[in-house]
Amino acid sequence: MDKRIYNFSAGPAVLPEEVLLEAQKDLFMLPGVGMSILEISHRSKTFDKIHAQAKEDLKKLLNLGDNYDLLFLQGGASLQFSMVPLNLMPPVNKADYLVTGTWSKKAVKEAKRVGTVNIAASTESENFNRIPKQEEFKLDSEAAYVHYTSNNTIYGTEWHYVPEVGNVPLVCDMSSDILSAPIDVNKYALIYAGAQKNMGPSGVTFVIIRKDMIERSQDTLHTMLNYKTHTDNDSLYNTPSVFGIYIIGLVAKYLLSIGGLSEMKKINQKKADLLYSCFDNSNGFFKGHAVPDSRSIMNITFRLPSEELEKKLIADATAAGFDGLKGHRSVGGLRASIYNAFPLKGVEDLVSFMEDFRKKNS
Amino acid sequence: MDKRIYNFSAGPAVLPEEVLLEAQKDLFMLPGVGMSILEISHRSKTFDKIHAQAKEDLKKLLNLGDNYDLLFLQGGASLQFSMVPLNLMPPVNKADYLVTGTWSKKAVKEAKRVGTVNIAASTESENFNRIPKQEEFKLDSEAAYVHYTSNNTIYGTEWHYVPEVGNVPLVCDMSSDILSAPIDVNKYALIYAGAQKNMGPSGVTFVIIRKDMIERSQDTLHTMLNYKTHTDNDSLYNTPSVFGIYIIGLVAKYLLSIGGLSEMKKINQKKADLLYSCFDNSNGFFKGHAVPDSRSIMNITFRLPSEELEKKLIADATAAGFDGLKGHRSVGGLRASIYNAFPLKGVEDLVSFMEDFRKKNS
Repeated sequence: MDKRIYNFSAGPAVLPEEVLLEAQKDLFMLPGVGMSILEISHRSKTFDKIHAQAKEDLKKLLNLGDNYDLLFLQGGASLQFSMVPLNLMPPVNKADYLVTGTWSKKAVKEAKRVGTVNIAASTESENFNRIPKQEEFKLDSEAAYVHYTSNNTIYGTEWHYVPEVGNVPLVCDMSSDILSAPIDVNKYALIYAGAQKNMGPSGVTFVIIRKDMIERSQDTLHTMLNYKTHTDNDSLYNTPSVFGIYIIGLVAKYLLSIGGLSEMKKINQKKADLLYSCFDNSNGFFKGHAVPDSRSIMNITFRLPSEELEKKLIADATAAGFDGLKGHRSVGGLRASIYNAFPLKGVEDLVSFMEDFRKKNS
Repeated sequence: MDKRIYNFSAGPAVLPEEVLLEAQKDLFMLPGVGMSILEISHRSKTFDKIHAQAKEDLKKLLNLGDNYDLLFLQGGASLQFSMVPLNLMPPVNKADYLVTGTWSKKAVKEAKRVGTVNIAASTESENFNRIPKQEEFKLDSEAAYVHYTSNNTIYGTEWHYVPEVGNVPLVCDMSSDILSAPIDVNKYALIYAGAQKNMGPSGVTFVIIRKDMIERSQDTLHTMLNYKTHTDNDSLYNTPSVFGIYIIGLVAKYLLSIGGLSEMKKINQKKADLLYSCFDNSNGFFKGHAVPDSRSIMNITFRLPSEELEKKLIADATAAGFDGLKGHRSVGGLRASIYNAFPLKGVEDLVSFMEDFRKKNS
């Protein structure tokens, strides 16, 4: 194979070609440094500059104020499922969770090891095909925080509003849609995201923490699980993923170059609209899992009239160079993950492929 | 700068040029895959093969039996300082620690959060300039395990024997000398190492765990901190550092190609001998921090007659293309980290540079 294929993987996922080419050019030796990015010390001036620039560009993209710290950690969102309650739940030891899928449930599981979890809303009985409405919440005004998952990779749903939680700190797992659209960070006390979908390679966890939250972290916590360790040391208490932060920096630079997150959102919306229109114009042949007002612009999940047809579409698509379309077993059917770097042309090609398939098979 | 410099950094550190060139070649697109290594799913067949091959090659290099599991985790040795006691200390809740430097002390600090730590030996009163002898140990035969650090990056000392601990499981932090020489893994219950010195880029933690140890991990542990989570899921409970594991695989393949760890040790010994001979033949101008029987073959720490001369040597060396020679503040002076991939030629050049410097300045 000598050309790049269309990669619909749910993550790790496609990266901008500009970023890959720049990283490739410098992989043997960074210009003016005489060493590879894989070899430089995390205490070196070269890395200082890369790290500071990545943070600065992300702050610009997200319009972040100085009341927030920005961290590059390890262990993925899965470790944040534990770090959030360990750091933020005491002393009240109770928190509200809005449950919209597999990842929210995993977050709940770890939080229960620390204190009392109140499921303030859940759409599990509807197989997570929608985001709950504000009026459905049963919030506890004394909760240590409210936690939710902004985009549900497996079910293909996404929050299109920010939950109103009064004075309770709001915590969000944005692994699947961070940097896909502008967000009002000021509504959040803590945001975390695995980098491997929209930001860079796997192995980096991005955390935005409002500075007043850090005061909650107790000295009895294990050092690496304490947010204070990482804010006090600017993510360099121990060796971070130097290469991962470097790639995230290149991605941030690329996003600024195309006009920032509002521009990125327009492109993402256009890609998603193409696919959803294809469903809506298919006379029920393609049936989205998510109800229309909860549709994700990152992960598009759908079924066909039979499992046989689903298998055939996946096989035909794979043969035609569309990779990673098999849906998660919790939903079945197909899933197209179309993160930031997924090209519009790839969605256009998939849609015409799908329309062709429908004509031949309905 | 258009050529590679000599990088004496203590880690992240120099990698084999063969590995860098291969990674560079395939960074935009893996042959026959149509995607970059930075984009492939950790659940894909392509990654399955890379992961399985890396494990197989490491097993071959380390002569590992099927009674051991091999894991690629995140969070560095620093997270292992917590995971080891959290998983292995209960139910007896006490463990022995042999303390030979900063990293051992950090391990002790986290272990104390879990149970009782017995300092079975320490050379702190001698500023960690030597490894304790077996007859100095005050071991507790009922300890849950004995922990030590095989190589002390900061002090430049290294264990040249494996502690005898009877039936108590032996745990070792090998971050700084893993894969530098053959080891008898059968003497260990658990070995861990940050990858960023001899194995690959930063962001991967390598763990070798004897299978009977896994039974100690309790279900009450946070999921990501439980070794059982990772052994049950072959390091894929959540998204690992795909790129890091890929590079580690290339490094393992490279080490096999040069003849394995006994061959690697010969080269490392030769490099270290060159530097230590330079000290021993300098009439006390270069004074090693480590006592001779505890000298590390990875990190060589030394002082000069005055701090002024030390500064001058570092400055002159940097100007001549020898980077990263400044010693850690705990020891002062200079440190040359000469991990596996550091070229013999670089040590030869440094030695002749140092001898020249001595002639001019003594």
